[in-house]
Amino acid sequence: MSKTSAPPTTGSGYFRALVFDAYGTLFDVHSVVTTCERLFPGKGEALSQAWRVKQLEYTWLRNSMQRHVDFNDVTQDALRVVCEALALSYTDALLDELIHAYRTLQPFTDARNALATLNAAKNKPKLAILSNGAPDMLNAVVKHNGFDSVLDEVLSVEEVGVGVFKPDPRVYQFAVDRLGIAKNEIGFVSSNGWDAAGAKAFGFNVFWINRRGAPVERLGVTPDYVVKSLDEVVAILR
Amino acid sequence: MSKTSAPPTTGSGYFRALVFDAYGTLFDVHSVVTTCERLFPGKGEALSQAWRVKQLEYTWLRNSMQRHVDFNDVTQDALRVVCEALALSYTDALLDELIHAYRTLQPFTDARNALATLNAAKNKPKLAILSNGAPDMLNAVVKHNGFDSVLDEVLSVEEVGVGVFKPDPRVYQFAVDRLGIAKNEIGFVSSNGWDAAGAKAFGFNVFWINRRGAPVERLGVTPDYVVKSLDEVVAILR
Repeated sequence: MSKTSAPPTTGSGYFRALVFDAYGTLFDVHSVVTTCERLFPGKGEALSQAWRVKQLEYTWLRNSMQRHVDFNDVTQDALRVVCEALALSYTDALLDELIHAYRTLQPFTDARNALATLNAAKNKPKLAILSNGAPDMLNAVVKHNGFDSVLDEVLSVEEVGVGVFKPDPRVYQFAVDRLGIAKNEIGFVSSNGWDAAGAKAFGFNVFWINRRGAPVERLGVTPDYVVKSLDEVVAILR
Repeated sequence: MSKTSAPPTTGSGYFRALVFDAYGTLFDVHSVVTTCERLFPGKGEALSQAWRVKQLEYTWLRNSMQRHVDFNDVTQDALRVVCEALALSYTDALLDELIHAYRTLQPFTDARNALATLNAAKNKPKLAILSNGAPDMLNAVVKHNGFDSVLDEVLSVEEVGVGVFKPDPRVYQFAVDRLGIAKNEIGFVSSNGWDAAGAKAFGFNVFWINRRGAPVERLGVTPDYVVKSLDEVVAILR
């Protein structure tokens, strides 16, 4: 763990709420690789990686273009164009199967453990998800993994009402509004470096889960805590 | 050439203005690979590719974050983080050399030819650049290649005055305002698929220079013309 700025501002040593990113932070987007590999033998890894990159690109581009569609559509558009780029021939049924895999993503082991521990803690903070996912796909993956029993809120960008994805500051503000908790009393947890930057620029206290030892994104802000896993977040908050 | 929609709306068979993207369309961003390879033997290609990807990511992310810095800074930030990710040890002097290479990018051969031909045409359209580049770096690469003699305008996003990069629609609107020509009388030319999409969503007539045979980006709009080189644009306009 490298701590890059001030400790939690709340006296109790933890925050009144912890807000988690979903895809890549709690749920492993690359757990689709099994389905990818079964449908496109030898290309599963390449497809899974390229799909995720393109999915993110499209969220950022649509923000800039002011042409929002929901994360189901972005995910499907990204999948189609990546299949085309990789010269993989697909049918609609096959795409449906891959899209469905997004509703049954596997959680990271440390995510399951961290949420259970935090949920059982004395002076438990509110536990929420704030995600680009559309409510239907988000609720599906949360329920599939039984995370609904430990989360107080599952917040989707679609509820913001203005048609934007993270890291638009209006998305982070929505979490503040819905939780009714000031932003400096919220800990935001993401393994996506760009999301950590967006949340920090907005004013959250930010934990960046740097699972792969990547450099900090150079976007003008620095996460408060850089850790390797969600276990370390729990340890810091204890 | 695949034509995907209606022909130019102007009776004369060409547009009153042609607006070109700079980086990747007129100038080859990967011509920095020579300098990259000299400074980091064996890593030049990887560095050049990753640098460009990160540079674009940062423009889109900063648009969403509403945290603009100019393209000099974005390009330098991207270079630093990519060097770190690739575990290349660098000095400030070495970065300066790479950044300087951006001011002396080589043009694509078809770009030089197309601009010369269009400039000599009867009923010559106005010829302009509309680029994410900051004025200093943009003017440097234009002048280095002698393109200032064939261009009527070199427009930078920095002149828009609101701190945004493409594909924000305000950037494309700026070209309309500065040229004083209606958007349906402007042909926009870009080899960046996302830029072609942004320009089309805005309302330009769009030529996508698809140099590498990539699939059309699935961003809800389709360029009017998909061609392989700028020579084809000239042929269409003739």
